[in-house]
Amino acid sequence: MPVPDLHTIMDAAERIKPLIHRTPLMRSAGINKLLGTEIIFKCENLQKAGSFKSRGACNAVFSLDAGQMSKGVGTHSSGNHAQALARAASLRNMDAYIVMPETSPQVKVKGVMGYGGRITFCKPTLQAREDALKEIIKSTGALEVHPYNDYRIIAGQATAALELIEEAGEVDIMMAPVGGGGLLSGTALITKYVSRNCLVIAAEPEKANDAYRSFHEGRFIPSENPKTIADGLLTSLGSLTFPIITEYVDDIVTVSEEGIISAMRLIWERMKIIIEPSSAVPLAAIIENKLDVKNKRIGIILSGGNIDLDRLPWSAHS
Amino acid sequence: MPVPDLHTIMDAAERIKPLIHRTPLMRSAGINKLLGTEIIFKCENLQKAGSFKSRGACNAVFSLDAGQMSKGVGTHSSGNHAQALARAASLRNMDAYIVMPETSPQVKVKGVMGYGGRITFCKPTLQAREDALKEIIKSTGALEVHPYNDYRIIAGQATAALELIEEAGEVDIMMAPVGGGGLLSGTALITKYVSRNCLVIAAEPEKANDAYRSFHEGRFIPSENPKTIADGLLTSLGSLTFPIITEYVDDIVTVSEEGIISAMRLIWERMKIIIEPSSAVPLAAIIENKLDVKNKRIGIILSGGNIDLDRLPWSAHS
Repeated sequence: MPVPDLHTIMDAAERIKPLIHRTPLMRSAGINKLLGTEIIFKCENLQKAGSFKSRGACNAVFSLDAGQMSKGVGTHSSGNHAQALARAASLRNMDAYIVMPETSPQVKVKGVMGYGGRITFCKPTLQAREDALKEIIKSTGALEVHPYNDYRIIAGQATAALELIEEAGEVDIMMAPVGGGGLLSGTALITKYVSRNCLVIAAEPEKANDAYRSFHEGRFIPSENPKTIADGLLTSLGSLTFPIITEYVDDIVTVSEEGIISAMRLIWERMKIIIEPSSAVPLAAIIENKLDVKNKRIGIILSGGNIDLDRLPWSAHS
Repeated sequence: MPVPDLHTIMDAAERIKPLIHRTPLMRSAGINKLLGTEIIFKCENLQKAGSFKSRGACNAVFSLDAGQMSKGVGTHSSGNHAQALARAASLRNMDAYIVMPETSPQVKVKGVMGYGGRITFCKPTLQAREDALKEIIKSTGALEVHPYNDYRIIAGQATAALELIEEAGEVDIMMAPVGGGGLLSGTALITKYVSRNCLVIAAEPEKANDAYRSFHEGRFIPSENPKTIADGLLTSLGSLTFPIITEYVDDIVTVSEEGIISAMRLIWERMKIIIEPSSAVPLAAIIENKLDVKNKRIGIILSGGNIDLDRLPWSAHS
């Protein structure tokens, strides 16, 4: 399968349409005034299962043929992909085998169980996660659906930016956070396909800056010991996402932890919506003057809204 | 001016249309499944200035003739009406004189200042507030715009339920919280005008149950020493709202503080939107089985989203 082209992404959009929310666009007069720009937020925090991950997961699961379907799908994830995949599989009456670290927050475990996912707990190391998944796949024949290093996933994630442009018209800059690069790859592809002159700029936490370094040094650098509140952005780029990002993304900038918390709180206070820290990273880049936004129209994908309400970042600071 | 009729409310809707958000309706498959019902939420937490109060304030301010305009408007309020009135006045280049208790949370003071309101601080008693406002009105000639005991305000608040019914079609039960009764009066009037068979049911905190008692005992009982987390619902009914509620509302039920906090948290977690405690009161009534909702379609006005993020009710409980 080649890099998703416009046709493939349009197909994905059609395929997942009945399975997901067409999430609203939101604007904040207060934030625009504060920052001297015009920002259009695509609210994937209001997406089914709480994040854009439902797009890719639905596209992958509903692309499977009957033979693959009968054996189910599997992944290891403690995050939004786990819930999204469990939900997508349940919509197609398939099994979803989810390997989760035994340290996963209760709220995420409950989320996966709520969608009927079959959970296997393992030690909280990448090795243990991969081993456990391999074992399950061997015994069940389930198909692994990787959270980002998969073209069907990338094509699905692309549909968020597509909807933004369809509804708001062209923007000058399109922004997304970057972790493994699934959302960013999809966003970059579709933006350049339908709006050639739009800049695509990603934002990443300074404390998990592997994509920033990989992009600027022109070679793959894995994420090493990342420590950021943006827990959706801890992963390294993949072998499929890195080349797309190299070719289609115009810049990657980094932001401080304080910037992420400020941006998140600004959105909560002004827009009255709940976003998780990862979603706040692009706005943090604007607040920290990491790009020129003066009088520009900017699209930002707010990636998700899954957060533990008992552990808000400002509680520790107040 | 008589009780607002359908024509008056439609006029208000037309008048305020360019001045407010047409807020979205939201549904949660998870909450519906949990409660065995279908709830349609009208998201006034996403309204301009963070609450439905912008509807009434805009209707009142934009109903004024040129003579009244030149002298400005005034009110005493530490809550959402203060911000909404300051905003509405600024849109019409008028002065807004806002009397606020010196103990008002900083976030609310900043909100009013952000809209250009002229604040006078006073001691935190009703007497001091009324005296300070009287003084200002005497010296400026400003017109007092009461937060709820005013037919223009009531007609404005009615437009939220009107939009809900326009967009979602008829519902079996329409719910709103009740404090001073402005939102409830407007909601009840328009619901009965356009959807005669729909039940209108209000919910109120047990610990601020003056409307419940007034309604069921058939005589006005003022709010005495109310103590509830739902800080938008502390006020007593007014001389204009009580008769409308008596005639047009089918029932008022009460809920516990724990129910309010649970309902608020459920909405935050499942719907990823920020609502203030007062907004959660109708859902709390459903959670606490205060009405029969089985297989019913229910409309709920989520009244507002202004809350101090440093003092969330579950922080104290965790």
